[in-house]
Amino acid sequence: MSELAPTFGEWTGAIQQRTESALDRFLPSIAIAPARLHDAMRYAVLGGGKRVRPLLCHAAGALSGADPAALDAAACAVELIHAYSLVHDDMPCMDDDVLRRGKPTVHVQYDDATALLVGDSLQSLAFLLLAEHCPVEPAARVRLVSELAVASGSRGMAGGQAIDLASVGVALGVAELEFMHIHKTGALIRCAVRLGAGCGSLDVAAAARLDHYAATVGLLFQVVDDVLDCEASTAALGKTAGKDAAANKPTYVSTLGLGRARERARELHGEAVASLEHFGAGARRLRELADFVLTRQN
Amino acid sequence: MSELAPTFGEWTGAIQQRTESALDRFLPSIAIAPARLHDAMRYAVLGGGKRVRPLLCHAAGALSGADPAALDAAACAVELIHAYSLVHDDMPCMDDDVLRRGKPTVHVQYDDATALLVGDSLQSLAFLLLAEHCPVEPAARVRLVSELAVASGSRGMAGGQAIDLASVGVALGVAELEFMHIHKTGALIRCAVRLGAGCGSLDVAAAARLDHYAATVGLLFQVVDDVLDCEASTAALGKTAGKDAAANKPTYVSTLGLGRARERARELHGEAVASLEHFGAGARRLRELADFVLTRQN
Repeated sequence: MSELAPTFGEWTGAIQQRTESALDRFLPSIAIAPARLHDAMRYAVLGGGKRVRPLLCHAAGALSGADPAALDAAACAVELIHAYSLVHDDMPCMDDDVLRRGKPTVHVQYDDATALLVGDSLQSLAFLLLAEHCPVEPAARVRLVSELAVASGSRGMAGGQAIDLASVGVALGVAELEFMHIHKTGALIRCAVRLGAGCGSLDVAAAARLDHYAATVGLLFQVVDDVLDCEASTAALGKTAGKDAAANKPTYVSTLGLGRARERARELHGEAVASLEHFGAGARRLRELADFVLTRQN
Repeated sequence: MSELAPTFGEWTGAIQQRTESALDRFLPSIAIAPARLHDAMRYAVLGGGKRVRPLLCHAAGALSGADPAALDAAACAVELIHAYSLVHDDMPCMDDDVLRRGKPTVHVQYDDATALLVGDSLQSLAFLLLAEHCPVEPAARVRLVSELAVASGSRGMAGGQAIDLASVGVALGVAELEFMHIHKTGALIRCAVRLGAGCGSLDVAAAARLDHYAATVGLLFQVVDDVLDCEASTAALGKTAGKDAAANKPTYVSTLGLGRARERARELHGEAVASLEHFGAGARRLRELADFVLTRQN
């Protein structure tokens, strides 16, 4: 490897750092009223998380020749949607969780009403970033808003959460389980890749291959999540482990068994990597990210 | 009045009807999964409400020569944000209300988790309407998204709700009370007018006058709301009356007294109507809406 090419660890560190600094810049200051809400929004978003979605967004954008400043806005928009979904998910009326990224969840640290408003406000801010802070042509910006709205709404992430809630205590088949996870987790991860690509330009065939990668990695992420939830400790995860089994929620592990779930993860990883074949060296980070999603420990 | 000009009642009926039909068209069908979430979204939005924001949006758009189809999308986007805020506001962790528009609130009819996801999904859908279903130039669409995001987020409506929560049991001065209400209620009402105007075109001076009308009517709406909350019955309001006093929340009535609150409403109405002077007959509906907001009984 040439001295000019950073290692995967160096590259992720650099993107995580620039994402943190962009998020810090885009989030309202606590000097602006209402200070407590803005403080809670910053608590929910800053200083934690692997930033998998921003990493995917930047890696896809590098492939489509996107402006890094546009990628910052798109990556942060997706991350804000992700952060809002965690805040609402952790609330007592949903998963009722007290620990996230090794810290008390927002409703524990502040209160339930504030957590509700934090999530609501982070969602609005995500759309504001795309509309106002993403230096691409207006027609492209409109497409980004549209993609993010579909991926996060009732036919995407929020819809997946509704299916998840309805599936407690229900024995799902693999097809139904994948339908649920394609919405709940997959839609936003896929959107991260699509927004990154959409900040630049790709021909139709390349965009379709990249989208296949994105959809596959989205599902892979959730299969690995289910395996980790079953295997890892709370300390390693930074969130409560074993929750799904305790909540009687169907997972890949409960549906397929641990061995077959691990095998499904390897299959999806192979499929994701195969869909990058035509891109050559430019897709290196996307390949490494597929490896990372497969082998991550938290 | 010529036979061609519908009365105010006929005009509002027509706009309410076309808004209802546009909302019905824009909301996901219950034939699409997740059916229960889509059913709850439709329950939250359809068949109720005065549609004050859509009326203002259409009236402003008529003044700027906007395409009625664009106004439908903009009016519905604002109404979806309003509807999501009501669903979240009524939840146990916020106002804990059981009655809205004469029907059980969403969390009572369904459950808390569904109410949370309904609100989240309605917000995404609002931005989708502007990005995808509003036939104006992309650059204008981007401005509409940006305006709605600011008006509904932490520096607008959601921020106003946070200030509202923090003000329970606190004696506010008039300036602080107005700051709270300008955010909580005023921002979205003002946005309804601004989006309507933004679907067409107005010169800078006209836009500024219209914006002054919008800001004033937004505040007027809340002053009247406070008076009605104190005076009217639950049956007439279709929501629980006397809640603010019971919750020990500062209102115009608790801060100014009933007589002075009524007087403040008349002042704001006069100011709103005065800011329409230059528009002549084209502003008739906006004038009538200011009258309606002043004199409404629920």
